[in-house]
Amino acid sequence: MADTAEIKVPAAETVPETAPEGTEDKGPSKNELKKRAKEAEKAKKAAEKAAKQAELAAQKAAADVDYAAEFYGKEPLNQSQSRPRRQRTQIASLNPNMDGENVLIRARVQTSRAQGNKMVFLNLRQRIDSVQALLTVTPEKVSKQMVKWAASLQDESIVLVEGIVKKSPEVIKSASVGDVELHLSKIFLVSGLDGRLPFTVEDANRPESEIASNEEVQYKRVLLETRLDNRVIDLRTQTNQAVFKLQSAIGHLFRDYLDNEGFLEIHSPKLQGAATESGASVFKVSYFKGGAFLAQSPQLAKQMAIAADFERVYEIGPVFRAENSNTHRHMTEFMGLDLEMAIEEHYHEVMELIDDLFKNMFRGLQEKYKNEIEVVRKAFPADEFKWRDGPEGTLKLSFREAVDLLVADGVSREVLDDIDTENEKRLGRIVKAKYDTDYFIIDKFPMALRPFYTMPDPEDPTVSNSYDFFMRGEEILSGAQRIHDPTLLIEKMKEKGIEPESMKSYVDAFRMGCPPHGGGGIGLERVLMLFLKLNNIRRASLFPRDPKRLEP
Amino acid sequence: MADTAEIKVPAAETVPETAPEGTEDKGPSKNELKKRAKEAEKAKKAAEKAAKQAELAAQKAAADVDYAAEFYGKEPLNQSQSRPRRQRTQIASLNPNMDGENVLIRARVQTSRAQGNKMVFLNLRQRIDSVQALLTVTPEKVSKQMVKWAASLQDESIVLVEGIVKKSPEVIKSASVGDVELHLSKIFLVSGLDGRLPFTVEDANRPESEIASNEEVQYKRVLLETRLDNRVIDLRTQTNQAVFKLQSAIGHLFRDYLDNEGFLEIHSPKLQGAATESGASVFKVSYFKGGAFLAQSPQLAKQMAIAADFERVYEIGPVFRAENSNTHRHMTEFMGLDLEMAIEEHYHEVMELIDDLFKNMFRGLQEKYKNEIEVVRKAFPADEFKWRDGPEGTLKLSFREAVDLLVADGVSREVLDDIDTENEKRLGRIVKAKYDTDYFIIDKFPMALRPFYTMPDPEDPTVSNSYDFFMRGEEILSGAQRIHDPTLLIEKMKEKGIEPESMKSYVDAFRMGCPPHGGGGIGLERVLMLFLKLNNIRRASLFPRDPKRLEP
Repeated sequence: MADTAEIKVPAAETVPETAPEGTEDKGPSKNELKKRAKEAEKAKKAAEKAAKQAELAAQKAAADVDYAAEFYGKEPLNQSQSRPRRQRTQIASLNPNMDGENVLIRARVQTSRAQGNKMVFLNLRQRIDSVQALLTVTPEKVSKQMVKWAASLQDESIVLVEGIVKKSPEVIKSASVGDVELHLSKIFLVSGLDGRLPFTVEDANRPESEIASNEEVQYKRVLLETRLDNRVIDLRTQTNQAVFKLQSAIGHLFRDYLDNEGFLEIHSPKLQGAATESGASVFKVSYFKGGAFLAQSPQLAKQMAIAADFERVYEIGPVFRAENSNTHRHMTEFMGLDLEMAIEEHYHEVMELIDDLFKNMFRGLQEKYKNEIEVVRKAFPADEFKWRDGPEGTLKLSFREAVDLLVADGVSREVLDDIDTENEKRLGRIVKAKYDTDYFIIDKFPMALRPFYTMPDPEDPTVSNSYDFFMRGEEILSGAQRIHDPTLLIEKMKEKGIEPESMKSYVDAFRMGCPPHGGGGIGLERVLMLFLKLNNIRRASLFPRDPKRLEP
Repeated sequence: MADTAEIKVPAAETVPETAPEGTEDKGPSKNELKKRAKEAEKAKKAAEKAAKQAELAAQKAAADVDYAAEFYGKEPLNQSQSRPRRQRTQIASLNPNMDGENVLIRARVQTSRAQGNKMVFLNLRQRIDSVQALLTVTPEKVSKQMVKWAASLQDESIVLVEGIVKKSPEVIKSASVGDVELHLSKIFLVSGLDGRLPFTVEDANRPESEIASNEEVQYKRVLLETRLDNRVIDLRTQTNQAVFKLQSAIGHLFRDYLDNEGFLEIHSPKLQGAATESGASVFKVSYFKGGAFLAQSPQLAKQMAIAADFERVYEIGPVFRAENSNTHRHMTEFMGLDLEMAIEEHYHEVMELIDDLFKNMFRGLQEKYKNEIEVVRKAFPADEFKWRDGPEGTLKLSFREAVDLLVADGVSREVLDDIDTENEKRLGRIVKAKYDTDYFIIDKFPMALRPFYTMPDPEDPTVSNSYDFFMRGEEILSGAQRIHDPTLLIEKMKEKGIEPESMKSYVDAFRMGCPPHGGGGIGLERVLMLFLKLNNIRRASLFPRDPKRLEP
């Protein structure tokens, strides 16, 4: 295709360096030799001139051929015709020290703006980076037509450009790399558009604050539903490029921490023979002539892995919830960061390890992803996420203490058998005001609020060895010590109306000896949403799924 | 519970350090003072003696109390009563330099063997490590009853033991840590068994070679079906502990390599609004009042991520295939290691990156997981996995060349429009004999054999820009350059009988500009199975799923 076509420079005519053989039989005369030398010299000069012309012609031809295909209305080629192995440059790496260097860059045209008919400014974008490029009519190199064609490129076209890096006289505010610009000599179309953009990436990336403070301009607001309907375009915004870099970072920080703590990564099946945990919110699958269910979490499998002696395990995988709930924080499919570990002495070993994991994650994000966080902040302004990283440790409240805080704040004790979403948020505000932290733990939940596999407290059977973790007043992890004793497990299943026989292989796993163990499950998208204050969980999911959305 | 109970040493009787108040009203005489001093001295000595006795009694009581609960038929406690924060030791870390050290270890009893009524030998196991421990009747410390009780522990009980590390006079062959043994002073039951083991872990771990060469002993063979029915027990074998350590290693090597190459980890939804790729082998899900499908791969989502400018992405996640096939290498759910990347010049960039990824993975496994590979080799003997790591590079055959090799080996060209499983294996043998490698690539598959989204070759439209990777004669990766041009994509969909409207959001992703791109999908369990020669893919999956198995 045009962008990869090898330029074949025509070889200059070969010049005889010495006189042809066979003419020297008798030995030439001195004059004859002189004459020949003169002719040879002349021929050499002519050849050199021809070579120079050929090179110039080739250069011009290359410039024409490379973009002509598109310019004259032909389609860019889909397949590679050759492989010149020329170095491509990333916009992020451009800097004033490269002043004068020739670079080759594939990028999106975010916007293009013609100035007269001799110059066009292009804003070129790669992920979260952008740079200004300009193409100017230049004799023998850049034709008027070429500039006209470049000015007519649709926004979001993908181009390959070649040009010289120039230190820019003043900082270019419209580009993330503002201290250089590119002076282009060539521009090729790699992929064009077939139709109209539902919205421009520039509009989609514009912070609400900028829209609100420039009412006279009447900037277009791109609503969440429109974004999600056209997610591929929406994901191209710098904001979203940064959001998903941070999503990946959370997974990596989770894994790195647990790898260091001797955990093993496992993969458990999502297809289950029986409905797990609670039958109501489980998706049913047609499985050959029978039926199956989608796992609501790797809960059963990871506990079975503990009974199978893996000691400490984690899994990053999708979990499915058939809850017909369309809130800002529910999806039907999300990523679970799950872990489970054997307990040596006390379930607080687990709680403390998870606490350390979270603090490590927060630290890692703020230290290593400052740039991405700042990019997101522009669109989603928020206070820096705060946690207690000092020797006083993370704030840990018992469920009872949490209730007392709410009561002291004016909530009626009668409604506090459970702490609902509203009161969770209120508690978050109380805690923030009193302890200056966006992150805390509630321990010792009432047994009645927890699933059947939760270990009761040894002294008060109405209370359990379980905990929730909170970020900005919303739950992001639920965990507990689990029941590893099959007799107690069966008793608790029956109390919750679950037929032990329906989960036979799970119960059986504990009959053959299992160490005391505990763990927790983290919602990846919730952590991302709350850390960045994205306000809607769908923004933290690449292609979100809810009861009303299965596309794209 | 017994293993964590805090020992409360009874306080020694308190001794009056000074005479009681009130007797000094008039001031005591000198003699009186002397007498009192003497009495005080006497009382002090008596108190010291009493304290010492109390301490000894407490020590003895502790030894008794700690195991008495179990010994006298009581159940081990489920919940932590205290948290003494005593260091626990891993069997793997034991070594002769620790001779004389007192250690505390939680482990499985793999086997126990009484010698007379005064001594019991225990083989203690943690993951892939084991050590021999012995408990001997010792006055004041280990009673006859305690030894008797320990000898009666069922195999696979979990115990907490305390004892002294002793350099062993000769290597103990039955243990993986053979140069030390443990001389126990205490043993507590952490978790016992409720019922009979379906098979012993010792039987399950015994290599076929050992069974075959000891016919007179009549060792029990544990069949695959029995293992899978009781997977939690089967997974406890040293072999399986090593297999899943290696499974985790493959994922980590995959990620580490791609992270270094600038890839972003993504998570795409498994719930799809439309059947993807090929409608026949897709699972249907009840989705509220409608229906959904389980993704057969992240193919569409990862391509859309490229159209969304993520440039290079990978995903590790479950993929679902509703194929009613019960071969040694098919499962209905398996882990896909998927990647997709923008192409700069030529699709071979992708093929070469994947090749480098695989070589890096093989190297990583052999360098960092030698021990685990050796453990598996005992049960599954195999030649070391071979690949060409030198400057000659990986063997790359075109599909045509592969066919020619088979024809030269005697296969009829007529049956070679496709290379079936049988001929794949044959080709593997031919290549191994000719090129001494277990790993190679076939490039340029016929277009007819590939999915609709495969990019045709620029010169020969019957051939495609696609490749498969092979290990030990079985396909482990399928990949290609994809069609990024919507017009060509629609044309190819129609040719394969797919209605473009049924995959609208996928097709639309390419209308708004998408760079040329390619990638591939790796079956994690296949790589693991073939690298280790496990012969059945179910052995490479924690809880395998096939048309007949949804449990455990």
